[in-house]
Amino acid sequence: MQGSTQTPSQPATAYPPTDRTVPTRSPDRASYDRELVHAILDEAYVCHLGFVRDGAPVVLPTLYARVGERLYVHGSTGSRPLRAAGQADPGLPVCLTVTHVDGLVLARSAFHHSINYRSVVVHGVARDVTDPEEKRQALDALVDHVVPGRAADSRPANKKELAATAVLRLDLDEVSAKLRTGGVNDEPEDLALPHWAGVVPVRRTYGTPIPDPALAADTALPDYLQGR
Amino acid sequence: MQGSTQTPSQPATAYPPTDRTVPTRSPDRASYDRELVHAILDEAYVCHLGFVRDGAPVVLPTLYARVGERLYVHGSTGSRPLRAAGQADPGLPVCLTVTHVDGLVLARSAFHHSINYRSVVVHGVARDVTDPEEKRQALDALVDHVVPGRAADSRPANKKELAATAVLRLDLDEVSAKLRTGGVNDEPEDLALPHWAGVVPVRRTYGTPIPDPALAADTALPDYLQGR
Repeated sequence: MQGSTQTPSQPATAYPPTDRTVPTRSPDRASYDRELVHAILDEAYVCHLGFVRDGAPVVLPTLYARVGERLYVHGSTGSRPLRAAGQADPGLPVCLTVTHVDGLVLARSAFHHSINYRSVVVHGVARDVTDPEEKRQALDALVDHVVPGRAADSRPANKKELAATAVLRLDLDEVSAKLRTGGVNDEPEDLALPHWAGVVPVRRTYGTPIPDPALAADTALPDYLQGR
Repeated sequence: MQGSTQTPSQPATAYPPTDRTVPTRSPDRASYDRELVHAILDEAYVCHLGFVRDGAPVVLPTLYARVGERLYVHGSTGSRPLRAAGQADPGLPVCLTVTHVDGLVLARSAFHHSINYRSVVVHGVARDVTDPEEKRQALDALVDHVVPGRAADSRPANKKELAATAVLRLDLDEVSAKLRTGGVNDEPEDLALPHWAGVVPVRRTYGTPIPDPALAADTALPDYLQGR
């Protein structure tokens, strides 16, 4: 790969680093490990998709799903990035970023305050999915990525809905993870300061599901929602 | 403002819409209300910052703070976007996006599955903050935005730390919020389907603070962390 800084010690299960996936600072926080990248991607379902419009950056939140080494996003065929990707040849250059916030790191010094996080940044070209079977599978994956098991327990998209939906594919080629974990990194001379220091864990949690008012009263909460 | 589509009915407390802040679809989900935008921005502390490098989009997660009608982000003076903004004249064109996920919307049809969310998208030019007093205030705001009250209860940055930190300012001029709230929007003919339908609330929650191992045993948890 052009611009690669891959070294012989890089395991085969890693994405080859490139000029733009090697950070200029805190390189120790970067990882190219495939399993780690997949785990971070699979735990979230909203990404921030960046593209360039009229020379300026645009960043929009959107749902995504991973199928093997492919990511899919979808939207109305009328939405700007979807239209742009459909019209561009070979596709739309994008940067897709996923971030989990895991903790607030409160150091004794303002400077060393930080966030524990795990993020994945994917660079590539998003291509319009035109194959009907791939499109159907991608749409199922998008539903199942948010609630595993749900795609089989809902009415599949009909022809009209399929025609109104555009799906983009982004291959996982140029990918990096970045993460900060652990505790406070204060300067030794600050350790005696009186300020409380430590980490406040942050989590995403789910509340009790709220049934649709039109739902029949005897409709059981499905198993795939019991654990949430 | 150039490209403005503002109408006389737009209240003075709203950001004037522009070509790029009026969505091509679901315009009913867009808002330019200043108070709503501020509330969405103040509830989060990690944004996704997009910029263009070598013609391609880059999206990175980063902390931010709001001070009135200004947003601040910070980073190492060695990091790419901070360096680019310092070198560019008048600054670095960016798109800064903040998203809260509030619920998973499970419709009877796959097509109508959705997410309840609130997002803010800010377009503009990020400028390097060179005034020392503004820089100090911005750094305090960045700490207080994550944990209100914390800046006064930590050691302020010293000269070396200030010199190592770059701060960018982005004015809130071209801004829009977008949100989806409420329940399921199924087609009338789907209401009799047997699938469970409803909304699963999503929240960000905080765990019990974990003190730094080097912390003196009698250091009390500060008031500003009691509520979390």
